[in-house]
Amino acid sequence: MEPFSTPFFEDNFRQYIEKNRDVFSKLEAMNSYYRSVVSSMIYDNLNKNSEIVRRIRNLDSAYKTIKQEKTDA
Amino acid sequence: MEPFSTPFFEDNFRQYIEKNRDVFSKLEAMNSYYRSVVSSMIYDNLNKNSEIVRRIRNLDSAYKTIKQEKTDA
Repeated sequence: MEPFSTPFFEDNFRQYIEKNRDVFSKLEAMNSYYRSVVSSMIYDNLNKNSEIVRRIRNLDSAYKTIKQEKTDA
Repeated sequence: MEPFSTPFFEDNFRQYIEKNRDVFSKLEAMNSYYRSVVSSMIYDNLNKNSEIVRRIRNLDSAYKTIKQEKTDA
């Protein structure tokens, strides 16, 4: 799976939600993961700004999908 | 206060935390606000990618400050 793609982030959201289900609600886990990923991407000076924005858009797109997904959490 | 500056976002974080203190813990409010601001900024086609990244860095910097701030919340 291509790193930083929308499906990549969807998988990561699911894993993060699952891993933290004892302490975070689904939405809390999602917002926490989202913030930590954005925060690390914006200080990555190896990447052009256009690439950073593209990755954040993929993350945001994954967020919207996972938010609406039925989970057993 | 300059829009999208770090102090601007610090103020907004404080207001958002205060406004939602009945429903969200401080950290929940912060992560929720962070996600909604990033999400709106990345689809703003009026701005260059460099400006979008600059604004997100200001937001992230404000996040770190407010997270450590003692509040009565």
